[in-house]
Amino acid sequence: FTSKLPWVGTTIFTVMSKLANEAGAINLSQGFPGFDCSPDLVALVEHYLKTGFNQYAPMTGVPALREALAQKTEQLYGVCYHPETEVTVTSGATEALFAAITAVIRPGDEVIVFEPAYDSYVPAIELNGGIPVFVTLTPPTYAIDWNTVRAKITEKTRLIIVNTPHNPTGRVWTADDLEQLAALVKHRDIWIVSDEVYEHIRFDGRPHRSLATHPVLQERTFVCGSFGKTFHITGWKIGYCLAPKELTTEFRKIHQYLTFSTVTPIQHALADYLKNPEHYETLPDFYERKRDLFLDSIRGSRFGFQPTEGSFFQTVSYQAITDESDYDLAVRLTREIGVASIPVSVFYNQKNDYRILRFCFAKDDETLLRAGERLSQL
Amino acid sequence: FTSKLPWVGTTIFTVMSKLANEAGAINLSQGFPGFDCSPDLVALVEHYLKTGFNQYAPMTGVPALREALAQKTEQLYGVCYHPETEVTVTSGATEALFAAITAVIRPGDEVIVFEPAYDSYVPAIELNGGIPVFVTLTPPTYAIDWNTVRAKITEKTRLIIVNTPHNPTGRVWTADDLEQLAALVKHRDIWIVSDEVYEHIRFDGRPHRSLATHPVLQERTFVCGSFGKTFHITGWKIGYCLAPKELTTEFRKIHQYLTFSTVTPIQHALADYLKNPEHYETLPDFYERKRDLFLDSIRGSRFGFQPTEGSFFQTVSYQAITDESDYDLAVRLTREIGVASIPVSVFYNQKNDYRILRFCFAKDDETLLRAGERLSQL
Ligand SMILES: CSCCC(=O)C(=O)O
Ligand SMILES: CSCCC(=O)C(=O)O
Repeated sequence: FTSKLPWVGTTIFTVMSKLANEAGAINLSQGFPGFDCSPDLVALVEHYLKTGFNQYAPMTGVPALREALAQKTEQLYGVCYHPETEVTVTSGATEALFAAITAVIRPGDEVIVFEPAYDSYVPAIELNGGIPVFVTLTPPTYAIDWNTVRAKITEKTRLIIVNTPHNPTGRVWTADDLEQLAALVKHRDIWIVSDEVYEHIRFDGRPHRSLATHPVLQERTFVCGSFGKTFHITGWKIGYCLAPKELTTEFRKIHQYLTFSTVTPIQHALADYLKNPEHYETLPDFYERKRDLFLDSIRGSRFGFQPTEGSFFQTVSYQAITDESDYDLAVRLTREIGVASIPVSVFYNQKNDYRILRFCFAKDDETLLRAGERLSQL
Repeated sequence: FTSKLPWVGTTIFTVMSKLANEAGAINLSQGFPGFDCSPDLVALVEHYLKTGFNQYAPMTGVPALREALAQKTEQLYGVCYHPETEVTVTSGATEALFAAITAVIRPGDEVIVFEPAYDSYVPAIELNGGIPVFVTLTPPTYAIDWNTVRAKITEKTRLIIVNTPHNPTGRVWTADDLEQLAALVKHRDIWIVSDEVYEHIRFDGRPHRSLATHPVLQERTFVCGSFGKTFHITGWKIGYCLAPKELTTEFRKIHQYLTFSTVTPIQHALADYLKNPEHYETLPDFYERKRDLFLDSIRGSRFGFQPTEGSFFQTVSYQAITDESDYDLAVRLTREIGVASIPVSVFYNQKNDYRILRFCFAKDDETLLRAGERLSQL
């Protein structure tokens, strides 16, 4: 039996979380909230569980949830997606990303991937016979050099994968990034998959620039979102895809055979919960406080940083004491100091090591303070 | 934008359910229970929802559920799967089937598909560049002619897809079927995906012959199962895959990028619920009663049948009055008589029309009786 993904091992998230458990370390590696979701949201799920909403949802998603998503998108970004033909509920954003990539990519197609990149993009491209073409972003700013992007576009480029706010760097796209991308794709047969799962987590007054807000981009983009990060329910695995009708038609043909449909009682609960904008409008402040708490706790330590612009991740640089790699440092910090992180080199195709670690600050204040104390001892 | 699945339209399940709704018909088309799951199971989910089990489950599934599945498989079939390395929880059996097919199939590989076939197999094969090779089974017995199967195997055959108990025909594989298949694949590099989601629904004392029970088959089979059919929770979308370590390793590489993981509180609840064998041992009797109720209600009508061997589907033949197709008849019965069914021709690649309809009898007794009454008027 020969592997179709021979280079894929256990993910870094599993490796580091396991290591953290074994070492009894504070786990700031895998990105998930260290606190629970709202009891109100749980109560809504209970309601639907108890009142018989336990059989297949429609393949495209529960109508009320598709409508709530369309309404929210219109209110926030002034963009209309038709709930019937342009909104699809998925089993997490991971499924949405896989389905969108699969809908577009054929063997030999090239896909522009900005790296560092979340680890699911490349396998999805390669399983469809596509060829990832990397645009490498580097610290400290991770800004995109659009001339480089232009130079990498060929006749075979079929797709560009965007992620804003960005995991792992926290960078948030600017209005200029949108314009630059629009100019590049305007008269070409290039589609876009935009991973916007951290949509509601960005700081210092920065707006989220959804690719849906630029008409040239909107008409060729699959916007992939998730409720996991927004409502502290990463374990419920409900995501979605917003895309113009023609793209949604193809997206649904894939979704239908990947998972067919998604957990019914949770979809109904989210439809209700989404109607109150407070449930997501409060998120930037909530996480900005946590970011600042964590940053204050490591100020004056060996770790250098720029406050993260969005997502619940903070990257930090460090002055190497020895010439240990970021990976070795992450392992050592877990074992010796009791704080687990993710070495950012794992998000680069060639494992570029810029000596950067990623910490997840979606944790209780007390946990963040303890982690900061330990890190400051180094 | 050109489609990768140009021939895929709206599924028959969606079409017929919609038609049933519009016509106010009794919906015996799409396969899902018309009654609710156990309140005990709901209470277990509530418990885990309320006590903070709302973040990512491990990629492979919650350990307690993997252990419960391994235990059940050992008790029922005497086959040991290691929960750590050979059991994976998925977002429904649809995902398990897609992941298993994707793990094996490369462009140009041939896959033996027995038809009539459930509608997700062929798109999964084709999205991976595989070529479905059909073995056509025909009413009334839908028995497999193993010489035909042998004749269709070539150097390029890489996979055989099995489904027992079978949707839509209800046929259950015999010990001889297992032997015949084993003899065919024994010294070849051919793998098997076995869709066993109706494992616990078979009648008249027939045992379920899991492919896991035959050593030659077990070592090359991905057994795909589901809780949806067993516990009346088709809307919760939890399935699984049992496969030897080497196959599971590859399966998980795909699963990881399709959905990554599956709803945490539900997994924990199912782990508890599965521990009481009564919860599935009672299922054959439960559904046999419903089958017989439905069959009694159409005895003496224009519809001919062999009592179904397994699954919650009954196929019936009919004496064509006009030369209308099974599809047209299904539509007409929905509109005029108020009972929706599925025309079995849709499960054949070439839409072979043997004038057979499929009825789902996973409904309240009263609903089944009313449907029978209406059908008997024809
Ligand atoms: C799906 S597990 C990884 C969680 C995550 O998004 C991250 O840590 O980057
Ligand atoms: C996933 S919808 C189809 C349900 C089903 O298994 C069937 O009706 O055959």
